[in-house]
Amino acid sequence: MAITVVGSVAFDSVETPAGRRDRCLAGAATYFSLAASFFTNVRVIAVVGEDFGPTEQAVFDTRGIERAPGRSFFWQGSYLDNLNEAKTLNTELNVFAGFEPKIPEAYRDSEFLFLANIDPVLQRRVREAMPHAKLVAGDTMNYWIKDHRPALLEVLAGLDILLINDTETRMLAGNNNLVQAARRVMSFGPRMLVVKHGEYGSSLFHRAIPNEQESETFRAPAFPLDQVVDPTGAGDSFAGGFFGYLASQPELTPGTFRRAMFYGGVMGSFTVERFGTERLQELTREEIDKRFAQFRELTHLD
Amino acid sequence: MAITVVGSVAFDSVETPAGRRDRCLAGAATYFSLAASFFTNVRVIAVVGEDFGPTEQAVFDTRGIERAPGRSFFWQGSYLDNLNEAKTLNTELNVFAGFEPKIPEAYRDSEFLFLANIDPVLQRRVREAMPHAKLVAGDTMNYWIKDHRPALLEVLAGLDILLINDTETRMLAGNNNLVQAARRVMSFGPRMLVVKHGEYGSSLFHRAIPNEQESETFRAPAFPLDQVVDPTGAGDSFAGGFFGYLASQPELTPGTFRRAMFYGGVMGSFTVERFGTERLQELTREEIDKRFAQFRELTHLD
Repeated sequence: MAITVVGSVAFDSVETPAGRRDRCLAGAATYFSLAASFFTNVRVIAVVGEDFGPTEQAVFDTRGIERAPGRSFFWQGSYLDNLNEAKTLNTELNVFAGFEPKIPEAYRDSEFLFLANIDPVLQRRVREAMPHAKLVAGDTMNYWIKDHRPALLEVLAGLDILLINDTETRMLAGNNNLVQAARRVMSFGPRMLVVKHGEYGSSLFHRAIPNEQESETFRAPAFPLDQVVDPTGAGDSFAGGFFGYLASQPELTPGTFRRAMFYGGVMGSFTVERFGTERLQELTREEIDKRFAQFRELTHLD
Repeated sequence: MAITVVGSVAFDSVETPAGRRDRCLAGAATYFSLAASFFTNVRVIAVVGEDFGPTEQAVFDTRGIERAPGRSFFWQGSYLDNLNEAKTLNTELNVFAGFEPKIPEAYRDSEFLFLANIDPVLQRRVREAMPHAKLVAGDTMNYWIKDHRPALLEVLAGLDILLINDTETRMLAGNNNLVQAARRVMSFGPRMLVVKHGEYGSSLFHRAIPNEQESETFRAPAFPLDQVVDPTGAGDSFAGGFFGYLASQPELTPGTFRRAMFYGGVMGSFTVERFGTERLQELTREEIDKRFAQFRELTHLD
């Protein structure tokens, strides 16, 4: 099944202890779609500026990418102080400031919809324009949680799965205990919550079934890497691997969701091995399946 | 096989968001031996003061516990600001200041030795007095890593397994990448390193076998708890479950070590459900095995 994703396509300049890159192709929708494209067809809805050239176009199905006068969304960040958390040095919304998502007719039959981290008002508009989507997942960030809560809550009410990190989960719930916080977040709408723990893996929470609470949680480790070059895009790549795998499967059983968590971790682990999308662009499905097998072995109890 | 453990037996006063307790039985050797005692016989080498009464004596095999004039080791801490890290309000070494571990003749045949977190000079002395131990594991903390490094390195050279947390691993190795740091720590002596990640579980590293690096790592999640009452002793209980299970097994295969990591997590998860040793003192082996099964299910991929 094809996935439609709405989100940012951008250029990033980053510096990390391993070096720096200027204006490389980035953005949540970019990482998501590259990661998911190993599993299924991905349709991207985004806006780019005149600086989006043939090299970048070759990466996407551009039918849903609008070109606007001006420059693309730009982000500059540094991981020199802390490899686990970017320090934002500069953000330029550029063409993204006036973004009005337009959904091509050919995309309207998508059964899988991913709302990457953008203004919840836009997320909601896309959700409403695609009433046939049978599985809707999304992401958000601290900025929307803190300052745009009412709009975000309207988005959450229309989501099946929310994918966010530990800090965002605790902030959204107003509760420091992760299990309690997960329950609270699911009470806002999503029947599943994926919490990304960075270098410690991820947890999948389902909304509780009475008397079966324990079996409703699943935990996947992170793949231990002896070198992290650039953490940018790890979370979006996780989401792409997770949702891409789901969309590729004939049936969504509990086992499918568990394997999807591992595929998410696999895609995130590849992304951080090189700068920007470099690793994803040269990756093969064979490498993905090999790492999936190593990853499964990593937590296997006989 | 019986385990001999040397370490602190103490009284703690703690405050957490769930309440407070004054002068409850505590100390690394206490948590370790209570957790390990569900799996095998545990022999404790420690010193206590005149405040160690019949209630506390009932918890231990006291043959190796020396009684000295004065008061027992005392620690006072608060988790009010951060449930993941204690703020120390007061430490009184008391009888521990002059502790000279004496090993009863009956303990000298122990094949399993655990050196809990105490002065590395004492750890080394106990290690040398028990040359027949076939598996030796130990713990340490930031204070010894920072200010007593030469003595600590001598202990590490005589260890099979070191159990420490993330911060201690990075500090000991002088390296922020966990995989690289683990390799460095094992170059000091231990052929295995268990890194405790708190609420995110634990990792087991083996010293690398050429071309098999990936298979030498194992990751266990933490059991998700919707209430943490008092985190004190979680790490020592983990060590007790881990080492106790190993000592109870006829053979130490890679699978044995993996299951030991899960038993460690199980024992840590019980400890934090109540204050001090309250939960461990009323726990049953049946509850342990039930949680082990739930825990295994939590990461199982079919």
